[in-house]
Amino acid sequence: MSMPQIPKGFRDFLPQKMAVRRRIIETMTRIFETFGFEPLDTPCLEYAETLEGKYGEEGEKLIYKFQDRGGRNVALRYDLTIPLSRVIAMHTDITKPFKRYQIAPVWRADKPQKGRFREFYQCDIDIIGSQSAYADGELLVITHSVLRTLGFENFIIRINNRKVLNALALKAGIAEKDIAAFLRCLDKLDKVGADAVLSEMQDKGLLSPRSSDLVYKTVLKDGGDFNEIAQLLQGIPVGDDGLKELEMIRETLVSHDVPEKFYRFDISLARGLDYYTGPIFETVVTEPKIGSITGGGRYDNLIGLFTKQTIPATGTSFGLERLVTVMEELDSLKTAPTQTRVLVTFFDETLMAENLRVAKKLRDEAINTEVYFAPVKLKKQLAYAANRSIPLVVIVGPDEAKQGMVTLRDMRRGSQETIPLPELIRTVKDDSVS
Amino acid sequence: MSMPQIPKGFRDFLPQKMAVRRRIIETMTRIFETFGFEPLDTPCLEYAETLEGKYGEEGEKLIYKFQDRGGRNVALRYDLTIPLSRVIAMHTDITKPFKRYQIAPVWRADKPQKGRFREFYQCDIDIIGSQSAYADGELLVITHSVLRTLGFENFIIRINNRKVLNALALKAGIAEKDIAAFLRCLDKLDKVGADAVLSEMQDKGLLSPRSSDLVYKTVLKDGGDFNEIAQLLQGIPVGDDGLKELEMIRETLVSHDVPEKFYRFDISLARGLDYYTGPIFETVVTEPKIGSITGGGRYDNLIGLFTKQTIPATGTSFGLERLVTVMEELDSLKTAPTQTRVLVTFFDETLMAENLRVAKKLRDEAINTEVYFAPVKLKKQLAYAANRSIPLVVIVGPDEAKQGMVTLRDMRRGSQETIPLPELIRTVKDDSVS
Repeated sequence: MSMPQIPKGFRDFLPQKMAVRRRIIETMTRIFETFGFEPLDTPCLEYAETLEGKYGEEGEKLIYKFQDRGGRNVALRYDLTIPLSRVIAMHTDITKPFKRYQIAPVWRADKPQKGRFREFYQCDIDIIGSQSAYADGELLVITHSVLRTLGFENFIIRINNRKVLNALALKAGIAEKDIAAFLRCLDKLDKVGADAVLSEMQDKGLLSPRSSDLVYKTVLKDGGDFNEIAQLLQGIPVGDDGLKELEMIRETLVSHDVPEKFYRFDISLARGLDYYTGPIFETVVTEPKIGSITGGGRYDNLIGLFTKQTIPATGTSFGLERLVTVMEELDSLKTAPTQTRVLVTFFDETLMAENLRVAKKLRDEAINTEVYFAPVKLKKQLAYAANRSIPLVVIVGPDEAKQGMVTLRDMRRGSQETIPLPELIRTVKDDSVS
Repeated sequence: MSMPQIPKGFRDFLPQKMAVRRRIIETMTRIFETFGFEPLDTPCLEYAETLEGKYGEEGEKLIYKFQDRGGRNVALRYDLTIPLSRVIAMHTDITKPFKRYQIAPVWRADKPQKGRFREFYQCDIDIIGSQSAYADGELLVITHSVLRTLGFENFIIRINNRKVLNALALKAGIAEKDIAAFLRCLDKLDKVGADAVLSEMQDKGLLSPRSSDLVYKTVLKDGGDFNEIAQLLQGIPVGDDGLKELEMIRETLVSHDVPEKFYRFDISLARGLDYYTGPIFETVVTEPKIGSITGGGRYDNLIGLFTKQTIPATGTSFGLERLVTVMEELDSLKTAPTQTRVLVTFFDETLMAENLRVAKKLRDEAINTEVYFAPVKLKKQLAYAANRSIPLVVIVGPDEAKQGMVTLRDMRRGSQETIPLPELIRTVKDDSVS
């Protein structure tokens, strides 16, 4: 058989790569749970019809679909939001508000390119059954908490509200049927700039000359000015609603001591997906420039696609791959290349039982310890420890064994000392702390 | 759209179900790491040819295969061993011995039935690049440690060695080409009994009349007698090798204080898969009777299917679904139905900022806390806490807020008291400990 391959756009994660990923996932899990979110897991395979018609024309093409052996059309999970909606529809007895998190891979048959993969992890939190903007605010408090805990310093959570954008469109005389197209144009602002967006809106016939001026001044120019908008929209009910919700979000952020530099109310934020109905948000890392690392918003009508009931919902998603990229580029995370602290070397078979007992004692103290099993020269075993970046090596020779001693070698300093076994435990524990 | 469905053999795991699963996975992860194992992740999709021809005729049919949009034949991961072998073949620079764990779903297009699913988790540890039986022994020490830590009391790790079985086959005059068939018959002993196995071996022409007697007495009758076998095989090199390896495994178990009642050297253990070459093992839970919950063995030639080099390897796999079943049946795990400790109730919007600050203080102390966002009656909020089994409820009314006090209600006792905020933290922390 020829050398095996891994499918394009898919990746193996060897232990060193896994360390960063696991640290991010553990940090998120812990923070999500302190806010009362609970884990949910859904299958990787869904019926195709559950996913079809939910992700727009472009998204639809990227769904991995196939027929199973029974001829049923199935598909690999494309995101975590639609499966959640299906769960809510099927399990009507779930107590609401239902706050769940899910950290899991999704699949998209996208063209593989730098930073874009066909299998990647999403980390989602959603609150189902609460229409309060405090719920939206909480998602942003969590976003801030996760990123700060991971060591991120240069990021801004951009916040807007589809209701405010709708009121603005109303004010600008944009027809209701054109609002979705208006938002899709606006969504390109960061990529193509204000003039290009304005041209496209005009070319598509979305704007009259008078409304062009209004939209340019209030939204497009320099990313727009939220205060101006707030004044402009006074008295339009949907705008008032939206502004009140944004005030509740601000209150939530202030109550949690989130510094102002980490968030901005930004009228030019549109978000691509059609299904948002209220507050929308995304987080942009400013250094390194990598685009958005979280995104989400309120989607009060999506779950209704499956069930006749309208169930309010809001959620946000962290992109694990981009978080990893930022952390690697910033080197903000000095993750140890291995979790293993100690290698117990092999001397000869007669001393193996002694080696194993020493290893057991270390493990009983929660010290990650590996035993070398093969009869090879000590030099080669030390090279193995160095290769693996295991910091400490324990050697038990016949003399040591007789006296209840062990030799402890510090691979980083190249020093070693022979000490009694109980001291070994203390020394290794102190070493872990420092 | 009609009510959505979930594909047959696939499952959602709501938070209460997830609690047990996560506790098992966290326990395993911690123990695996104390033994120096490190995490590996591989894609859910592999090229079909990577998996084909590895799982026997029956297994082959159960692989989920399809063509992706580029016309490539791909398949969902069927187990974690073949992907590991592929990784080892592709990454020749991995330092060996390589000790990795992987806890991940696999897919088999099996007929769904009680306790059998199309998507289920395997939890694997493997040691690649060590030919020492101490490595095999370590896997069993870990097996014991995981099961005991999870609260299992009635299980036996059965241990055998393909080399010993080969020597026995030699002694019994079974032709080398018939050994695989002999082992497949033997593998059915638990299911069909000694007489049926003997008949099948005879019907297939594997045994002469003389060897029938030998095999029946030493292997089939009462599950065989290992001491008799050891005497019988003395002087057959492959048998001596196998017996010496089993002695090393015993030494490893004894060094780690694994009580004898938890393991048994059992000549009648065969294991189904063709690729085992040395020690083999599985764990049977005796109460409730549910069959094997772990299985594994040495497979020194499998990785060579991908790479010309022979690379020794040994591994074992825990079946998560069966572990969960046993824990649920034994009720040995009293997992709290929620990780959330406190619900902060809603009073009115003017007090929301105060509510949020109280919640923040609790979370800062790592106490999982949820805030109720909607303006509904306190009674309904208490019913929500009861429904979710959240044990403690905090109420901040206008009087409390003015005095820096909070009311803490214990949902289990139905009692409540009004206390200063700092005392709240202490009280909740003490409650978590008890």
